[in-house]
Amino acid sequence: MEFGWSWHIEWQSAYEFHGHHIDQVLEDITTKYQRVMVARLTRFGKSLIIDGKIQSTVFDEYIYHETLVHPLLLSLRNPERILILGGGEGATLREVLRHKTVKKAVMVDIDQAVIDFARKHLTEWHRGSFDDPRAEIVIDDALNFIQRNKETFDAIILDLTDPIMGNSSYKLYTREFYEKLSNSINEGGGIVTQATSPSFSIDTFSGIYNTIRSVYHTTKASITYVPSFDGLWGFVYAYKGSVDTRMSSETINKLIEDRINGKLRFYDGETHSTLFNIPKNIREKLSSESRISTENNPVTVPA
Amino acid sequence: MEFGWSWHIEWQSAYEFHGHHIDQVLEDITTKYQRVMVARLTRFGKSLIIDGKIQSTVFDEYIYHETLVHPLLLSLRNPERILILGGGEGATLREVLRHKTVKKAVMVDIDQAVIDFARKHLTEWHRGSFDDPRAEIVIDDALNFIQRNKETFDAIILDLTDPIMGNSSYKLYTREFYEKLSNSINEGGGIVTQATSPSFSIDTFSGIYNTIRSVYHTTKASITYVPSFDGLWGFVYAYKGSVDTRMSSETINKLIEDRINGKLRFYDGETHSTLFNIPKNIREKLSSESRISTENNPVTVPA
Amino acid sequence: MEFGWSWHIEWQSAYEFHGHHIDQVLEDITTKYQRVMVARLTRFGKSLIIDGKIQSTVFDEYIYHETLVHPLLLSLRNPERILILGGGEGATLREVLRHKTVKKAVMVDIDQAVIDFARKHLTEWHRGSFDDPRAEIVIDDALNFIQRNKETFDAIILDLTDPIMGNSSYKLYTREFYEKLSNSINEGGGIVTQATSPSFSIDTFSGIYNTIRSVYHTTKASITYVPSFDGLWGFVYAYKGSVDTRMSSETINKLIEDRINGKLRFYDGETHSTLFNIPKNIREKLSSESRISTENNPVTVPA
Amino acid sequence: MEFGWSWHIEWQSAYEFHGHHIDQVLEDITTKYQRVMVARLTRFGKSLIIDGKIQSTVFDEYIYHETLVHPLLLSLRNPERILILGGGEGATLREVLRHKTVKKAVMVDIDQAVIDFARKHLTEWHRGSFDDPRAEIVIDDALNFIQRNKETFDAIILDLTDPIMGNSSYKLYTREFYEKLSNSINEGGGIVTQATSPSFSIDTFSGIYNTIRSVYHTTKASITYVPSFDGLWGFVYAYKGSVDTRMSSETINKLIEDRINGKLRFYDGETHSTLFNIPKNIREKLSSESRISTENNPVTVPA
Repeated sequence: MEFGWSWHIEWQSAYEFHGHHIDQVLEDITTKYQRVMVARLTRFGKSLIIDGKIQSTVFDEYIYHETLVHPLLLSLRNPERILILGGGEGATLREVLRHKTVKKAVMVDIDQAVIDFARKHLTEWHRGSFDDPRAEIVIDDALNFIQRNKETFDAIILDLTDPIMGNSSYKLYTREFYEKLSNSINEGGGIVTQATSPSFSIDTFSGIYNTIRSVYHTTKASITYVPSFDGLWGFVYAYKGSVDTRMSSETINKLIEDRINGKLRFYDGETHSTLFNIPKNIREKLSSESRISTENNPVTVPA
Repeated sequence: MEFGWSWHIEWQSAYEFHGHHIDQVLEDITTKYQRVMVARLTRFGKSLIIDGKIQSTVFDEYIYHETLVHPLLLSLRNPERILILGGGEGATLREVLRHKTVKKAVMVDIDQAVIDFARKHLTEWHRGSFDDPRAEIVIDDALNFIQRNKETFDAIILDLTDPIMGNSSYKLYTREFYEKLSNSINEGGGIVTQATSPSFSIDTFSGIYNTIRSVYHTTKASITYVPSFDGLWGFVYAYKGSVDTRMSSETINKLIEDRINGKLRFYDGETHSTLFNIPKNIREKLSSESRISTENNPVTVPA
Repeated sequence: MEFGWSWHIEWQSAYEFHGHHIDQVLEDITTKYQRVMVARLTRFGKSLIIDGKIQSTVFDEYIYHETLVHPLLLSLRNPERILILGGGEGATLREVLRHKTVKKAVMVDIDQAVIDFARKHLTEWHRGSFDDPRAEIVIDDALNFIQRNKETFDAIILDLTDPIMGNSSYKLYTREFYEKLSNSINEGGGIVTQATSPSFSIDTFSGIYNTIRSVYHTTKASITYVPSFDGLWGFVYAYKGSVDTRMSSETINKLIEDRINGKLRFYDGETHSTLFNIPKNIREKLSSESRISTENNPVTVPA
Repeated sequence: MEFGWSWHIEWQSAYEFHGHHIDQVLEDITTKYQRVMVARLTRFGKSLIIDGKIQSTVFDEYIYHETLVHPLLLSLRNPERILILGGGEGATLREVLRHKTVKKAVMVDIDQAVIDFARKHLTEWHRGSFDDPRAEIVIDDALNFIQRNKETFDAIILDLTDPIMGNSSYKLYTREFYEKLSNSINEGGGIVTQATSPSFSIDTFSGIYNTIRSVYHTTKASITYVPSFDGLWGFVYAYKGSVDTRMSSETINKLIEDRINGKLRFYDGETHSTLFNIPKNIREKLSSESRISTENNPVTVPA
């Protein structure tokens, strides 16, 4: 058969789809919350797909996870206690634990079945980090957790599914949530969130950016192309209190050497420049955004 | 997401494909010979897919298997010993064993892994027929088997994959093979073969028909629409020696009642009329066909 | 590029689609009522596509149009005056005008733009029939036309788009409409309607059948596979008053020779047997149907 | 119909495709060289598609064309005479002519039919630039033109189709061609070429980069994400002789204001930083590349 016949087709809208050929479906289950599949894609290798969206692939998950974790942690003086909301694959946890400063990393995910699935199939992602003595795994809804949490952290990493109207995750991108979250952050600490795609939902990206900017002291955005997400991906970083986040390329490279175990594949001083220099067309969109996401009037992406 | 994202896409040619949404992939393995998947398709339910082709589905396998088995067996006086070449799902065997006259059914399939797969996943197909005391399962190449076989049968049922240039099955549709096969048939016995699709490969269908006609005494063709094959499907029936195959609708219904256990869902006297009255456009193609498939110059379908 | 890139993708449901490669789009316009495209499909050649549905193709339109027209007209004694509702391509009109008995054929279509489009692009379909002196073209809504019509006809041919909830055509498949229609038919005359696909909307097919059966004296159904419709297609024929419609294969062949100009490609006595002998699975569905389509509770197909 | 049915499906490989819904096909012709279609895509608006590849769209052509033209021209002292090879849409010419320094722009394209097509359908692209008195349009093969050319230029812009084995364009990315080209460049002048996609053909991108680096004095690469190309796109810039191309963000913004008519939408000082700071994973690929494309052993992309 010269034509591929087993396909993951991902819809970016009713008018756009991308087809990825599947070499083999390894497992395909439906948990209490979602349909979870791990498959070998011809282009991206082993991949985690949840409810029709590629979550991450062995081919390029490092781009997303390094961009999510390292710019924030390296911009902090001495990040010791880290909270991860979401991140069931274990790769965000893995990157966090590479930081020599980190003493404790709490990861909160809603779906035990996804974590079990990750333990079984996604060893290339977590690489044992679930069993690191510094790691603590909590099965809970992120909003519940934050409402009851009494600890404070140096960094909080929001590795959540997109804010989709009708599911519960959209509340995790609102002003109300960011305000609550602030109580769990130490002064001088920071947060980062994935912020959806500037390619497919630029209004959501800029809305998240502007909402965070309305709550936190210093807010920055980065953008990078993630092949398996089929477009640009956005991230927003913010700090509680005044933090000077300017770092030269050389400083970044030195910090990586000093504070991170092992070798990074994507992030370094020069990559930092391409990530944080936003192209003019998107930059103008960010700076002109005035909407703020609230529980009553949330910024979301279409289902 | 309202749009389906997990798809089996079946190509009928480089210029035609049909997409079937997959609710769940139950298992997806590659045996020594082929990629074998069992999946729940939204439209057809549990389905067996081999190398990108739907082999049969719980929704409509009865159409194919009843058309393959019953017109032949009911047209024979007293079919006791039956040989099935191919048919790994066990459904052809199941239909054969419903005939009260049958004392022995030998099934020869090349791929043990497919039979194991069928035993595990396709209980709705075989319904225990693999374990019927009259059944005998042989793992062998059909051509090897026929070359060494010393037994004779009342009916031989060819439930084989399509003749594709480059695989070995194309030899099982040639004059040489049909001649060899004749040695394994009792006088007055018959054969039937699936004969590919008059919709997608009419030259192959008519070529198989004409090849069989050149070897056997009485040859007939039937055509029916199989939803999961996405078009018409052809069958060719032939007899060793002179056999009067004309049966009235009433006779067929009486034979079904007398000789078949349980109720048929598709085949009866009136269905027989629609199966064996070939529409003019296809009938003219069959009657004007002059090619004969030989090992040196085989009739095949494109890969 | 070895892979085709220009595609017509036809959805049979949210879970099934068929892709047809387009060699060239000849024209693609949106009229007051619908998007109308004529394109050369690789498999089917020049094809008319309206609102995403292949209406007919130069490759196989004869199957549909011969099945729609000839079984009805040949079953009537002396059909002279024919009414066609719909049929903008001109091919139904063409087949009607081949009957030597026909003295007048009125065709009513809602969309002048489609007829202009057909005149320009679909010469293989109409072959000049629009300009036959026996033909009369009326631009009107079929329901309006029937409500005001004072003429009577020997045969009325309903060559309409599928009954889709939300468009107006669904009214043309209801008991109220069939009752009104009866006033325009001569005693001993008949009607035929396309009745959607037994493959994709069997409830609609059986619902139309049963609705007509509740209004007319003699009702019959036929089924045939139409490649470009990607499945079986159903037709329902009915008569005003008692008409003996039984004809032997030989009688049909004789009538074709006597009453139809030129050669038919699909319909003849043997084809008649395959058309009107409905397979058991569908036959049982038809005979057990009890719903009747009414304006308040219409039988429709999903949009 | 809620599902789109008219689609452009672009294959990035045998295992990846992207479907773009088509609102309307405006024209679809086959010239002596290629199939050329202009269509309104739902996402990107009016788009030019040649042989199955989106060439540019009204939605985002500015990203590609600004990145192709401005970094080169602004890095040159006083670019007066410009040669464009390819670029049939007229948008590269349009961007070149916005430079106040430019006195002459020669554009060489092989396909008169494409230029006629662009004049008729792509007014948003060329905006009259074909008729600018400084513009000169030559219909010729680029290789022929360069072999016979006696003029010299300050900048040569290679806006060519991808190097595909089996078509002629692959010669326009070889060392032999770059050497010939050098004769047409003034000392201190520069060239730029589109260099295929780092996402889909990174070996081709790095091969082109390394080939140019082996011929020219100063060589730089940029990368940007182009939505309608469905991934990153690469560009290589090089200079004849020693040219200091370092420019601060402020310098670039000043040069844009001084030398370019009208407002840019994508390129400015900050965008320059994101374009020319290549992420680590791709940067390592570029720096480790050792292959050089030659006529006998060319670097190509699969058809």
